[in-house]
Parts: sequence; structure tokens; C-alpha cells
Amino acid sequence: MENPNEARTREYRDYIEQFLKEHLSAFGEEPQKQLFDAMGYSLLAGGKRLRPIFAFDFCRMAEGNWKTAAPLAAAVEMIHTYSLIHDDLPAMDNDDYRRGRLTNHKVYGEAMAILSGDALLTDAFSIAAQAKIPAEKTVFALSVLSECAGSRGMVGGQVLDILSEERVCSEQEVLDIQNRKTGALINAACVLGVIAAGGTDEQIAAAARFAGLIGLAFQIRDDMLDVIGTAQEMGKDVGCDDTKNTFVRLYGLKKCEELVNSYTQKAIGFLDIFPDHAYMASLAESLSARRV
Amino acid sequence: MENPNEARTREYRDYIEQFLKEHLSAFGEEPQKQLFDAMGYSLLAGGKRLRPIFAFDFCRMAEGNWKTAAPLAAAVEMIHTYSLIHDDLPAMDNDDYRRGRLTNHKVYGEAMAILSGDALLTDAFSIAAQAKIPAEKTVFALSVLSECAGSRGMVGGQVLDILSEERVCSEQEVLDIQNRKTGALINAACVLGVIAAGGTDEQIAAAARFAGLIGLAFQIRDDMLDVIGTAQEMGKDVGCDDTKNTFVRLYGLKKCEELVNSYTQKAIGFLDIFPDHAYMASLAESLSARRV
Repeated sequence: MENPNEARTREYRDYIEQFLKEHLSAFGEEPQKQLFDAMGYSLLAGGKRLRPIFAFDFCRMAEGNWKTAAPLAAAVEMIHTYSLIHDDLPAMDNDDYRRGRLTNHKVYGEAMAILSGDALLTDAFSIAAQAKIPAEKTVFALSVLSECAGSRGMVGGQVLDILSEERVCSEQEVLDIQNRKTGALINAACVLGVIAAGGTDEQIAAAARFAGLIGLAFQIRDDMLDVIGTAQEMGKDVGCDDTKNTFVRLYGLKKCEELVNSYTQKAIGFLDIFPDHAYMASLAESLSARRV
Repeated sequence: MENPNEARTREYRDYIEQFLKEHLSAFGEEPQKQLFDAMGYSLLAGGKRLRPIFAFDFCRMAEGNWKTAAPLAAAVEMIHTYSLIHDDLPAMDNDDYRRGRLTNHKVYGEAMAILSGDALLTDAFSIAAQAKIPAEKTVFALSVLSECAGSRGMVGGQVLDILSEERVCSEQEVLDIQNRKTGALINAACVLGVIAAGGTDEQIAAAARFAGLIGLAFQIRDDMLDVIGTAQEMGKDVGCDDTKNTFVRLYGLKKCEELVNSYTQKAIGFLDIFPDHAYMASLAESLSARRV
């Protein structure tokens, strides 16, 4: 039998898949079909849907009906997807594959990849604006979302990451880059869940603190898995060929393992404000402990 | 002495320049300075600021304080600017110059041009969300803005334009492409001005009808000036080498002149709902009659 945590994860995941699919198919009759194909190719590529799951469960923890958060959860996932499409472009990371499939621009061409990213980013705000919550909450949610995704959030982090290539960064710089590049959107997901529930300022603050620490733990684990994975594939010593500003280069693998654990425990501590947080605590544990 | 219309245009233009400058300089201390430089390079390149002028004056016509519309006017201009940066990219139109200056990617590189476009688009929603109007109006304005700019609006039009290259389009297709590609954002500017003023549904509908017709008149005039300009430069007969789906190819120059005039007069007719519309009528006339 499936354990209750897995059942809930699957329920959240199925719901967001369906929500995103319905959104895209609503446009099926438009003449610019190729744009919707390109958007759907990346949006419906079967990601982990971590950000929507955070949004849904923070809404539930703050005693809201979690489905209320769907338009906001979808918006965060669309922004995450656009960022992957643009990051993969030849002028950026120039990646041909993502999760074992050809990247968007390899299938649809660069122009369509740029435009489908632009469309996902723009449409995210249309969908978020449809949330069935009081208008002041919607405005607040849209502000948080655009701040987290924009020049001082995710895009800013991407720029800092590019500018930091080929030089050694300080600990503070690496933290700043990661907080913006991946942390900001996880932050948005958790905070938007609480906003959708009509949660308190204290709950919003706790969600943001949790998200910041979990984002870091997640990224450190990612860096560790990259190094270990590369080492296994290449048959080299771990960390030797690492010229990027990763946490592994900064701290070494042993310290990284400690940090992942301590950040995760600290993050879980911020969930105390929510009476029923066992699912989120267990999700945080399993994310930090993951081996793939 | 300056005539009153010119004085008003200058007041609107100075105000939006100052507003945009202040917005960008507020970020001056952030480490990702190069991103703000790249955003500012295109955003403060001295465009005509037509869209903000529309937003301001529709706000005034609907008896609002026109300065209330500034965050919405700025958002429209930022979205217009991002679309120019992305359109100029090598994978799109591959333009080296715009208005006599190097394009964004020629100065900052492709990666930074993609990211500064992404940032302008995202930040536009942050700024729009700060409008000092009732929250329901802000949500409505953000919906209109994202619908007009997204997959069914401006980005959709851009995709249709790319897909229509190298085949002859019907009249309906050319109209559809232009309505989305340039009309949608002009529509947003006019409608957002009325929303900022707290105008009626009838005023919003009139602003949209005006914008649709003026957008077409503007685009037809653009196509005409392109052909005439090219002919003068190249010393060739007008229209002969025209393989693009323009209004000139569709209708010929003489019919185009008639259409510009009739669309403009029809557009001005929709201004009747606003008691004091002399400035906007005269602006519409001068835009349609322009020779550069």
C-alpha cells in the first residue's frame, strides 16, 4: 500500500498536471498553435512539480483549501519552466538535452524557444491574476511573484552567476547567487501558498524562512550530487576538476553534508507555527537526503 | 511659443522619463549592476513614449489624475522595450542597429540581452502592482496587461509573423497579426489609463475600440513609410521588391492612404464618450499623417 505522504504528493502532482494541461488546451483553436506546442513541450515534460507542491501544502498548512492555490502554483511552475528554456539557449548554457529529452530550442528552433519562454512568463501573470482570493491578496501575490522572479530575484541571480564565471567567489557571493537563482522562486511558492490561504504575516515570514533554508539545502545537495555523479561517470576523484563556484568547492563534501542536515533541521523548525506540518517536514527530509 | 498640445506631450514624456529613471536607479547598489545597465540602455534610449502618453491621456480624459497611471504606463513601456530587445536578437530579426544606436545584444552580448528582456518583462508586473488604485482595479489592469502581452496577444502576433514569412497571407491574417503584434500593447496602454482613473465599462470599451483602429492606422502608415523610404534609398519603384505580408502589398499605396484616414476618423469617433478629447484627437491625426 502507498504511504499517506506519497498519496498526498501524487494528489498534488496530478492536480497541477491537469490544471496546466487544461490551461494550454484552452488555446487549442488559436492560429499560433506552434507556440502552444512549444510551451507545452517544456511545461508538460514531467518535472517533479516541487514548487506547486510547496504552494499547495503551505496553503493547506495555513488552513486554506489547497486547490485555491492552483493558479498561483501554476504561475510559479510556468516561470520555473520559462527560466529553464531560456537557460538552455545557445547564448546561455547551450544545452542540447534536459532530463533526457531534447531542449526546447533543439526541437522548435531558437526563435520559438525565446518566444515560448516569453509567453510562459507573461501568461503566468494572467493565470495568477485569476486566483479566487480577495483582490488585495492577489495584488500581494503578484508582487511577491514578480519580485522573486525579476531583476532582484531569479534573473538577477542568473546574471550574477554568469558574471562570476572564471573567478573565485566568496562564501557570501555564492550564497547570494544561489539565494536568488533558485531560492527566490521556492520562496515565492511557499509564500504564495500562505497568501492563498489568507494566512497571517507570521505564517508568511515563517514560510519565507523555511524556503530560504530549504532552497540552500536543496542546492548544496545538487552540487554534491553533480560532483559525485561526474566523478562516477568520469572515473576521477571527486571535486578535482571543479572550477565552478559551487558549495562543494567552497566547503568540501564533508562540510556540505553537515550543512544540508543543519539547514534542513533549521528549516523544519520554522514549520512549528503550522499545527499540521508532518508532511512538509518529511518532504524536506527526503529532499535533503536524496541520492539522485 | 510652444502650442498647448506640444506642451502637454512634453509634460507626459518628461514625467515618464523621470519615473523610469528613478525606478532603475533605485537598484544602483545591487551587485548585478550590469543587468541594470543593459535594461537602462534600451529603456532610456529616448523612444517616442507613445504608449505612456496614451495611458496618461486616457486617464486624464476619464477624469482621473493622470499621474496615477504612471506605474501602469511604465509597465507598458517596459514590456514594449523588452519586446524590441528580444526581436533584435540574432535568432529573431538579427538587427545590429535600432534608432541609429547599436542594439542591446551588440553592446552587452546575447545572454545579457535575453536576461535584460526577461527582467524588464518581469519587473513590469512589479511596478504595475504598485499602482495607487483600488486592488480590484490593479488586478484587472494586470490581467489586461498580461493578456495583451502574452501568448494570445503580442507574443502570439510575433509567432504568427514568423510563421507567415515566405507565404502570402489573406487580408484577415495580416489584420490578425498586426492587431496582436502592435495593436495589443497600444490597446493595453489606452485601457489601463481608463482603469487607473476608475472609468466606466463604456469608457474602457471605447478606449479599446479607439486603440484597435489607431493601432492599425499606425501600422499601415509604418508599412507605407517603409516602402517609400526604401524606394527613395534604393532608387527603385515603390512596392516592387516587397515580399513581406505588409498592408502595402495587400492594398497598394493609394488604398492604404485612404484606410489610414478612414481608420483614424473612425477611431476619433470613439473618443466622443470623453468630454475633453481634443488633445487625443489631434495626437491621432498627427500620428496618422506623419511622414517619418
